[in-house]
Amino acid sequence: MEIKIYYEDTDAAGVVYYANYLKYMERARTEFLKERGIDVAEYHKKGYLFAVVDADIHYKRPAKLGEIIDVTTEITEMTHVTITIKHQVLRMDTLLVDATVRLACIDPNGKPQRIPPEFFTLCGNGKNRDG
Amino acid sequence: MEIKIYYEDTDAAGVVYYANYLKYMERARTEFLKERGIDVAEYHKKGYLFAVVDADIHYKRPAKLGEIIDVTTEITEMTHVTITIKHQVLRMDTLLVDATVRLACIDPNGKPQRIPPEFFTLCGNGKNRDG
Amino acid sequence: MEIKIYYEDTDAAGVVYYANYLKYMERARTEFLKERGIDVAEYHKKGYLFAVVDADIHYKRPAKLGEIIDVTTEITEMTHVTITIKHQVLRMDTLLVDATVRLACIDPNGKPQRIPPEFFTLCGNGKNRDG
Amino acid sequence: MEIKIYYEDTDAAGVVYYANYLKYMERARTEFLKERGIDVAEYHKKGYLFAVVDADIHYKRPAKLGEIIDVTTEITEMTHVTITIKHQVLRMDTLLVDATVRLACIDPNGKPQRIPPEFFTLCGNGKNRDG
Repeated sequence: MEIKIYYEDTDAAGVVYYANYLKYMERARTEFLKERGIDVAEYHKKGYLFAVVDADIHYKRPAKLGEIIDVTTEITEMTHVTITIKHQVLRMDTLLVDATVRLACIDPNGKPQRIPPEFFTLCGNGKNRDG
Repeated sequence: MEIKIYYEDTDAAGVVYYANYLKYMERARTEFLKERGIDVAEYHKKGYLFAVVDADIHYKRPAKLGEIIDVTTEITEMTHVTITIKHQVLRMDTLLVDATVRLACIDPNGKPQRIPPEFFTLCGNGKNRDG
Repeated sequence: MEIKIYYEDTDAAGVVYYANYLKYMERARTEFLKERGIDVAEYHKKGYLFAVVDADIHYKRPAKLGEIIDVTTEITEMTHVTITIKHQVLRMDTLLVDATVRLACIDPNGKPQRIPPEFFTLCGNGKNRDG
Repeated sequence: MEIKIYYEDTDAAGVVYYANYLKYMERARTEFLKERGIDVAEYHKKGYLFAVVDADIHYKRPAKLGEIIDVTTEITEMTHVTITIKHQVLRMDTLLVDATVRLACIDPNGKPQRIPPEFFTLCGNGKNRDG
């Protein structure tokens, strides 16, 4: 997924503010799931939410105003209640940020619940990498 | 209400990003109402939400990293369904931004509804300015 | 310019937070200028920045999670130091937000300066509407 | 450091958006350093910036609209070029989020540089925990 850097993304150090990469990763995995037939907003309405429980992020190089970056998404593990995703943020072939994010399926009250079974069919067939 | 400017607030131009002043104004009016006995989060739970319908903002001078600014709140008009508020953002005695914001009372589905009657007692007694 | 609504854009009222539309408008006018040969990030490096001095915004209907909205950009006036832009935010044919934003050309120290003359050629030839 | 949760902080799931905790941690460590005589904005002007290079975050429970949370800051390690900080986000005695963040001292061009020597005196004397 391509993302362009606007003023909103940057800070007074002239680079993308570190929290904003987490927004890009969420945009990227939303589109990754969409391409596999999973519409996050529709699941939200049905009472299936996905909360990040762990995020391990390594910032290697900064992105700057006007640049276009790529965010890749890869599912590395799925259990009945969690999905582990590896994201990379790249500018051309240069790795800027990499991260591992683990999400848990919860209901609207925040209680853990099982991931809908179709996720395993839709995401588990080897076509689990994107970017 | 005093607000300190952190990196998150600034952009690559080295100043506070223009959309962020709208966040400060919302913080300021939330605290303004709290001081008058109106807890916005409690009203949210009861089904009373306040949506901004108009905002007229004039940016005069920028705020910068590390500065402490003041945001004032004054109710200038209340009807049965809307509240009009004037905000000023100041650094010491220097006016940085001024704005007029009109809010409408809505229910969780976005339908207009009457402002709870206690608002008129709590906010309408001349003690309607703060900062 | 099409924009998809992610969780980052929404708030606890279930709709896009009111300050975020100002981000979308800035994205839209950046792309509008880019299509006319004006790269905002390049001008930033050359010392030409554009600061919003006035914003008059009318929120009519909310955008929600997962929706795709359009943001139009139209230059309505250019003086030697300011550009006035009209933005509309639409979901299909429904107007959600409209706004008039006036920007001033400044140098990196915040001092007003003349808009580079090529802006008048590039933006002033009748092809000044987009979306 | 106490932080109140406003609409800007929340998302359509009704809780604080996961990227926003990184903003709170940055606010908290800025104030932590300030209390020890280190003004981040002054160091920024002198050409000393601090970039997050690693962040390892564990989200345990969500914060919600209107709540007041506490963010603690503790320096766990300082080398000549990096500072490692442990943050905890708490609501009363309940741990919501904990994180380890490593920052590198850089110059305005992003090149690593040595941490100013006074940091070791000001932060290294056992008074390195706060919140």
